[in-house]
Amino acid sequence: MAGMKKLLLLGLAVLSSGTAALEGARDKSDSPNFVVIFCDDLGYGDLGCFGHPTIKTPQLDRMAREGQKWTNFYVAASVCTPSRAGLLTGRLPIRSGMCSDMRRVLFPDSKGGLPKSEITIARALKKAGYDTAAVGKWHLGHLPPYLPTSHGFDTYFGIPYSNDMDKVAEGPNREIAFDPKSEYWDVPLMRDKAIVERPAKQETITKRYTEEAEKFIAAHRRKDAAPFFLYLAHSMPHIPLFRSKRFVGKSARGYYGDVIQEIDWSVGRLLRALREGGLAEKTLVVFTSDNGPWLIYDTHGGSAGLLREGKGSTWEGGMREPTVFWWPGKLKKGVVTGMGSTLDLFPTFLALAGAEMPGDRTYDGGDLSPALFGTGASPRREMFFYRGQRVYAARVGEYKAHFITKPAYGKGQIVEHDPPVLYHLGEDPSEKYDIAEKNPEVIETIRKIVARHEAGVEPVEDQLAR
Amino acid sequence: MAGMKKLLLLGLAVLSSGTAALEGARDKSDSPNFVVIFCDDLGYGDLGCFGHPTIKTPQLDRMAREGQKWTNFYVAASVCTPSRAGLLTGRLPIRSGMCSDMRRVLFPDSKGGLPKSEITIARALKKAGYDTAAVGKWHLGHLPPYLPTSHGFDTYFGIPYSNDMDKVAEGPNREIAFDPKSEYWDVPLMRDKAIVERPAKQETITKRYTEEAEKFIAAHRRKDAAPFFLYLAHSMPHIPLFRSKRFVGKSARGYYGDVIQEIDWSVGRLLRALREGGLAEKTLVVFTSDNGPWLIYDTHGGSAGLLREGKGSTWEGGMREPTVFWWPGKLKKGVVTGMGSTLDLFPTFLALAGAEMPGDRTYDGGDLSPALFGTGASPRREMFFYRGQRVYAARVGEYKAHFITKPAYGKGQIVEHDPPVLYHLGEDPSEKYDIAEKNPEVIETIRKIVARHEAGVEPVEDQLAR
Repeated sequence: MAGMKKLLLLGLAVLSSGTAALEGARDKSDSPNFVVIFCDDLGYGDLGCFGHPTIKTPQLDRMAREGQKWTNFYVAASVCTPSRAGLLTGRLPIRSGMCSDMRRVLFPDSKGGLPKSEITIARALKKAGYDTAAVGKWHLGHLPPYLPTSHGFDTYFGIPYSNDMDKVAEGPNREIAFDPKSEYWDVPLMRDKAIVERPAKQETITKRYTEEAEKFIAAHRRKDAAPFFLYLAHSMPHIPLFRSKRFVGKSARGYYGDVIQEIDWSVGRLLRALREGGLAEKTLVVFTSDNGPWLIYDTHGGSAGLLREGKGSTWEGGMREPTVFWWPGKLKKGVVTGMGSTLDLFPTFLALAGAEMPGDRTYDGGDLSPALFGTGASPRREMFFYRGQRVYAARVGEYKAHFITKPAYGKGQIVEHDPPVLYHLGEDPSEKYDIAEKNPEVIETIRKIVARHEAGVEPVEDQLAR
Repeated sequence: MAGMKKLLLLGLAVLSSGTAALEGARDKSDSPNFVVIFCDDLGYGDLGCFGHPTIKTPQLDRMAREGQKWTNFYVAASVCTPSRAGLLTGRLPIRSGMCSDMRRVLFPDSKGGLPKSEITIARALKKAGYDTAAVGKWHLGHLPPYLPTSHGFDTYFGIPYSNDMDKVAEGPNREIAFDPKSEYWDVPLMRDKAIVERPAKQETITKRYTEEAEKFIAAHRRKDAAPFFLYLAHSMPHIPLFRSKRFVGKSARGYYGDVIQEIDWSVGRLLRALREGGLAEKTLVVFTSDNGPWLIYDTHGGSAGLLREGKGSTWEGGMREPTVFWWPGKLKKGVVTGMGSTLDLFPTFLALAGAEMPGDRTYDGGDLSPALFGTGASPRREMFFYRGQRVYAARVGEYKAHFITKPAYGKGQIVEHDPPVLYHLGEDPSEKYDIAEKNPEVIETIRKIVARHEAGVEPVEDQLAR
């Protein structure tokens, strides 16, 4: 098959690790700020600029127009805890023990969390002179050694795990979720390591996260202020859905639409704060989400658009997220169809900050600078799709092979495939037409790449099973 | 149920018929030009600005940014012939005999066509002093009395029916379609009433349509030129797919993506011709398609994005199309989520041209000016979804009731529903969650509106069965 050699070479390409930052794009004396806006369970198809017909997202649409819309951007896992571990460490969660075949995520009775030995983006940037703040949902361990302020963040304000945990109301979660009130869940709201409100008043949580983030940005207006890293991880649109009074009934998409429109408002507020603070040209902002939509929750769940399946699945709908990069005057505006991942943020940020990558561990991403500044392609050529501790699927170039498939949470059975089913995601983004039979060499190449990857993974303690 | 009275009132609202044009938006001495760019079998999800991840449509994305993106815009039928009849007459095809329970569309052996008694947009605008041109696929009758130049168009250049008709190659249509060559189909290319090429060289057809349209626009640069109506109905992306050499392999979406990217190029050319000719501020351009994607053709068919089903079906994917309006300096830029339809173009254009609607017949649309100029909402409150001569479904406000359902071509069976299944399209655009049981009054309201509509339809000769 033509192009096979090229595919193999691409597959073998070692991801660069922070050395390829475009020198010209950065004034070394002026390290850029970084803001990550991370949603929870947002579907690929849930923003106006990603094709939703009734959810209005004028602020995100504008952010995409002014920046870059990434259409092949992946998260590190299809559920909350491992996905967040991947983003913050730049390493697949299998390397930190933050994914498990026993439990999907951390729970209020969990003893584990992100090990102290892991280095988060916050810790790495802190070492490079950055101020750091985490606002929102954490979900990488609620016990003191695992909280954000133990992991390189100067401050923290948010909920330590999912907003549907600590349920105290009686009745099936599903029914309660469709008419939610904050008091149905005894979720704590924390400042640094202290609980400051319980149950967290979720009706105003998006608003309060936004205000907290705005304050942090405002504190960095001074010319002599340190550069900063702000990690704003919204609790929404994870069910149960909550939104402020002024957004109730605002969207034709109902409860879910109201919630997204409040997040859109929040994005607008933050970008405005950056603009008005004279910080826009010094700040790279990334908007994405942790995993795909929770499909079993009917209209309270989101939509993956034309992608297959959702949260919990290694089909595209579970792990490809609507992603926007923004940095006025710096990024090459437009649509980027090359691959990227939350795993690439660690090396990208460190490169842009002029900081060295830690040399003592394996990273799973590369510096996206060439794609961001329009000087070249994204360095990412492959993506591994884990469910728990197993590689269910792998993408190499446009080809994706599924060795094991299982639909989104609450639906269907595990099916092992040998040979794997194979899709060309460029031609067939909805993963409808299996082309394995005609492409045995592609499958062999992907098998080799997966085997090499797996050989490089060392066993560590399962933090979710503790 | 709250809001029921409102729904009933909305449902009963008589669609305005051309009298509501915003006077201030038009200089009466200077009637605007109209360009309709009409694709064939384009899916709701197939443009970048409507969420496709790998088809690149920078020209259409720009057109949408500079104009209006309509996300609830319907065609008059889910297949070619009736959809086109609806657009050009402003009347549901049931009124002109251009839909049938016997045959879906017109074929090369058909004797019928759009009756002379029907008034097309072209004829109505001609009467108001417009120059008129049809370029591309016609499919409203290939015999002389039915061709464009018999229906108000000064000139015609294109193919009279679908590009997969007159098959001469041996073998199953499906296999041939996947590796198409022009000579497999003996489709005629016509200029006015004469065949000028047979088989039509389809490889260059999008390019030649574009050049023809550009010439027509260029001929209207003169200050004293008459206003014009250009109807450019692309043959693509109807299978068999063809594109010019320079687009071969251009898209990661393969053959289909190449074709859409050539159409995107074409759109860019026409808008540039309007700009350079000083005509942009005098010209309303509408981009849409005749019906949803032909799903049975695998990757050679398009995608309806998050909408259900495709071509041939009365589910949303069959009849909701990605639609963009453009008129620099005139339209209120943004996303319009109100309902609109190709059935509304006739009254909208006539109103903007200052022409009277013919008073001797029933129309099925209204003047979209309030939505276009941002002075109010779209007048459309209801939409009837016909398959053949029967109302399969009806939308009133955000509610859509299906009395009969059948999937897209080549799939599944007819199912009659009593009571109908009911969806709220605002909250549930993918038509997943039937809410009939909880909303009997909504169904009663929709039943009444359908009954009133059906009582107003007079039987006419079936042109497709001839």
